[in-house]
Order: sequence, then structure tokens, then C-alpha cells
Amino acid sequence: MQRNDNRLRTALLALGTLVGILLLPSLSLAEASDPLPSWNEGPAKTAIIEFVKATTDPANPKFVSPEARIATFDQDGTTWIEQPMYAQVMYCLDRVPALTEKKPELKSIEPFKTVLSGDREAMAKLPKEDLMKILAATLSGMTVEAFNAEVKTWIEAAKHPRFNRLYTDLTYQPMLEVMRLFRDNGYKTYFVTGGGQDFVRVYAERVYGVPPEQVVGSAGATEFGYDEHGKPVLTKVPKLLLNDDKAGKPEGIHFVVGRRPVAAFGNSIGDREMLEYTQAGGGARLMLLVHHDDAEREYAYGPQSKVGTFTDALMDEAKSNGWIVVSMKNDCKRIFAFDQ
Amino acid sequence: MQRNDNRLRTALLALGTLVGILLLPSLSLAEASDPLPSWNEGPAKTAIIEFVKATTDPANPKFVSPEARIATFDQDGTTWIEQPMYAQVMYCLDRVPALTEKKPELKSIEPFKTVLSGDREAMAKLPKEDLMKILAATLSGMTVEAFNAEVKTWIEAAKHPRFNRLYTDLTYQPMLEVMRLFRDNGYKTYFVTGGGQDFVRVYAERVYGVPPEQVVGSAGATEFGYDEHGKPVLTKVPKLLLNDDKAGKPEGIHFVVGRRPVAAFGNSIGDREMLEYTQAGGGARLMLLVHHDDAEREYAYGPQSKVGTFTDALMDEAKSNGWIVVSMKNDCKRIFAFDQ
Repeated sequence: MQRNDNRLRTALLALGTLVGILLLPSLSLAEASDPLPSWNEGPAKTAIIEFVKATTDPANPKFVSPEARIATFDQDGTTWIEQPMYAQVMYCLDRVPALTEKKPELKSIEPFKTVLSGDREAMAKLPKEDLMKILAATLSGMTVEAFNAEVKTWIEAAKHPRFNRLYTDLTYQPMLEVMRLFRDNGYKTYFVTGGGQDFVRVYAERVYGVPPEQVVGSAGATEFGYDEHGKPVLTKVPKLLLNDDKAGKPEGIHFVVGRRPVAAFGNSIGDREMLEYTQAGGGARLMLLVHHDDAEREYAYGPQSKVGTFTDALMDEAKSNGWIVVSMKNDCKRIFAFDQ
Repeated sequence: MQRNDNRLRTALLALGTLVGILLLPSLSLAEASDPLPSWNEGPAKTAIIEFVKATTDPANPKFVSPEARIATFDQDGTTWIEQPMYAQVMYCLDRVPALTEKKPELKSIEPFKTVLSGDREAMAKLPKEDLMKILAATLSGMTVEAFNAEVKTWIEAAKHPRFNRLYTDLTYQPMLEVMRLFRDNGYKTYFVTGGGQDFVRVYAERVYGVPPEQVVGSAGATEFGYDEHGKPVLTKVPKLLLNDDKAGKPEGIHFVVGRRPVAAFGNSIGDREMLEYTQAGGGARLMLLVHHDDAEREYAYGPQSKVGTFTDALMDEAKSNGWIVVSMKNDCKRIFAFDQ
């Protein structure tokens, strides 16, 4: 049993400490290695590294005890691409043909009719309430296991329209490095996303190293019941339990985590309340916003954007509150893994 | 930074392993020590120990990978006392005088009038909807921080009416040992309680070693806003987000954890669906019910009980499904820490 493994480990650590002191000079070389190689040198990179160093040094007044080390990350636009449309919305649109095969009566009804037409321009113009109808219809009505399998199949095949690559290849390397740096220093990294909690859970562990229990997202309810063989199942139902956007982000963090984050990362007005709530905890806190200003390597978008809106008011608040604003153009040496 | 600590640890472990092999004979003595000393020998104790051994042994077909090791525990009646009334209901009744000081108009209104009268018999007869009114009124309207402080003060002072001891002294030692045994073997132990999520979080880490993010419970919503100084705050509001009882338990587990438990522990019809859901995962699973049959050291109660109801149908289901039923009278050598 692992209990004995633990005891063994303790004993060996004690022994090893004596011997290991000899190794220290060579290890301090490792300290010089760069934990954020995809970042250009600059105030953003320095602030992140200094924050982690300060909050994990028991001699530093900014020290944060290990159990309180919670870092929350928005996903769309913060750790992966969100233009021209959220990946999950693409997924829902892609699910419409299968849905209308099962429910043919929907084929002639809007907004399903437009989606089936394949007219991308018309789809892009669908009003928000129509999109919500599509989301509700394609994200419910199946067991949790069936949903997971559908998302897994999709995410392993669907390509981004501009880059013609898997969405999971369009994660931001600089932010993956930040997540890793925080975890290497005893932080629990959470997603706090406006996207679907169950959707993100399917790939978050593989792609980001974030386990299902550390994904907070917009969540529909499930209903416990029994299938035709009497087996207990959870079925996804079209009832929103948590709208994990704006004020819903701190509310969702409290519900699932029950602790205030020490560091929070976002990119839009949807993350504002999460960053404010994080900062209001006092003491050492890090708040960061990714600013999309690189039309060449990724996208440049701001106040007029349909997704990931970054308003002038948000920029003002970031400046007056001392939040880090990351310029993707200037701060990122590399954005995607396939960049040179 | 801890990153280097980790490297150091890895290096020392590698070194230590060579030296440490000499220690193995003496460590195997530790294996003989009893991880469940408050249990009498018997099939329940044996089944628990064997389950942990099998699921953590990579050579065993029942092996469970470390990230899937989730064990869920009901609280009231499973890890601490629930008779004659749930501790949290006692808390809410105790809060009524402070509430009516702030809102004097409630003093002459039922059910608050009855509670203020101090007539315990009349209070015990309050119908469920009246109790719900008291719960809603005393568990909302304040910030999360203010609530936490109130619960902390109460739990450190309130005494159980029969034992005249703190509620936190009335935890079941056999179950504390089980929680520890699971954790020592790489399991994450979660509470999945019908009690209030925020209430249990206040003391769960100190008393049970369960951190706030591993407490799933009945949860009211919070509302993000700003206090009179413009500081961001979360205020508890009287809107039920999760009724974490019966079918609500597997639903709550999916919402907060996103993984099916491998082991589940309960004591009443409120835990039935959680145990069924756990078992339906297939493979190695452990389902356990605590049966309160010891009127002398604790309480004996069954189908007619107002709290923690254990029906005959539940006992039948436990038997036919191979769930472990723990007799507190026969299986527990010791119930409370103060027992001889």
C-alpha cells in the first residue's frame, strides 16, 4: 500500500538530504534556466516570475501558504484562440445535422434551418437568442458519457477555419508556460471559463494539465435517473446552473473552489469581476489580461469585437489597478507551438 | 522557488533509493501496524483494507489510477453525530435572536416567534417549510466572510445537548481512520453532504483534513457586488443552487468533481443514489452504509427517524448489491475519541 511508500519516501528524503547537499552547486545552475522561454524579456515576464518567487519564499512577506495557492485562468482568448468564433459554438453548429436526424421536425424550423443550409455568413448573423437555442439543443438530452464521447471525437478532428489546425494546437505557448510555472510552485491551476464546464473537461487534462475537478465553467444541470436496463445515469438537461461569465465567475469560483484566487488571468470584460474579486483579497495578488494586438500571428481585436471584448474602460481599470496587460505582439516571442 | 526544490527532491530520491534499500526489512514491520485501530476485526474492516490494497497495487486487476481515486463521504450520521438534530439546524436556530435584533418585525411572526420562545418541544414540532424559512433567513443576507466568521464562532462553542461536548468532538473515530487510510493511499476524500456547503467548509479542513474545494454540499447562490466602500464582495442570497440530497448527490458530484467516485460512504436514504451511481461505474468499487444501532454509546435509529432515515428497503438494497453495512455496535471498538 502507498502508506508504506510514503514512509519509505520520508526515510529516504531524510537520508538523501545529508548526501544531497553536495549536489547543490550544480542545481543552482538549473535556477538560471528560463521558466518562460516563449516570452520576450519585459515587465510582464519579470512581474510573473517575481510574483511566483515572492509567494513561495517563506522568508518573503508576500509568502502564500501552499493550501491557499489558487490560480484561475479564463480559457477562450486567454489560453487558446477564440476568433472568429468560440470552439464550443463551432462544436454546437457541427452537431446540428446529427440532432436533426434524430428530431426531423427541427429541420424546417429556425435557427436549425439556417445552420443546415451551411451558409456561414447567415450563421454568423444569427442573433444571440438563436445561438442559445442551438446550444441548449445540442448540449443536452444525452448522458454525460455520451456527451463526453461526442466532444472527444470532435476535438480530435475539427480544424480551425484560418489555421487549418486542430483547436488544441492553437493553445498559447506563453500561457501554457505560465500554468506550468505556477503548478511547479505548488499552485492549483483552475479554469474559470464562460465555456461549458463539461466541454472543457473533456480535453483540459490532456491539453493543459488541468484535471476535471479544476474546471469551473458555464454548467447545465444534470438529472439522475435510470436507463432502460435500470442502470443509474446522469442526463444533461437544458437548465443553466451557472453562467460563468462576468459576475458569474467569482460566484462560480466560490461555489466550486470555496477559496479566493491569489492570481487570475483573463482577456476580456467577461473576466473583469474575477480579477477585481482576486485583487480584493489583499496581500500578494497577480491580475493579468491578455491583449490581442497581433493580427499577423493571431488576431487583433478590441472594443468592437463580438467575442473577447476588450473595452477602453477595461484598459483604464487595468492601468489604475496595476493589472498586467500582456501585448501578444510585443510580449510573446512565440504564440503557437508551430511558430518559429 | 519550489521548482528547484522539486528537482532537488527528485535528485535526492534517486540517490536515496540506492541507500534506502537497506531500510526495507525494518519498514515491512510498519506494514503490520493497524490502519483502522478503532475497528473490531470483522468482514467490514477486512473489506475496507483489502479494497485499498487492491486498488493501489499496480499488479492487481482492480488497480485504480491515481487521478481517478475519488472517495465521497456523507457527513451527518456518517462521519459525525446527527441526532437529535443536524448541527447546522441547531446553528440556524441559535442565529434567530441575532437575526430578529436586526429585523424586529420578525419577532412576532412564525416560525421566528416559536424559536424565540425557547420552547424546545415546540421547535421540534415545526413543520419542514417553517424550518426552511429559518434556514433561508439565517443562511443568507451576509457576505461570505461574515458568514464564515459566525459559523467559526459557533462551532468552537456550541455543545451537543446529550453529550455536552463540542460537535467537532463528536466525530466518529472509525470513519476518520477510513478517511485517513484512503488519503494515505492517494485518494482525494470529498464530503458530499446534504448540509450546507459553506457551513461545512468552515471546519472541514481542521476537523477532517478535507479542504474547502473538496466539500460538495447543499448550496445557496452568492451574488457578486460592491460594498459601501466599493470593495468587491460576494453576498449569500436565499436561492438554492444545489439540493445535495438523494438524486442531488450524484448531480452535485458531477457538477463539482466531474468524476465518478470509486468509493462512497453514507448512512441513510439520502445517500442511496450516490452509492448506486458509484457502483454503476463498474470495476472495483466500494459502497458502505453506517448503521446506527448503538443506543448506549451513540444512538439507535432506523425507518421511523426524522433524520438519517435507514429504511428496510435500503437494507435490502445494500444486501443485494453487496454494499458494506457497518454496525456501530459490533464493528466499532471505539466511536468517539473520548470513548475508552
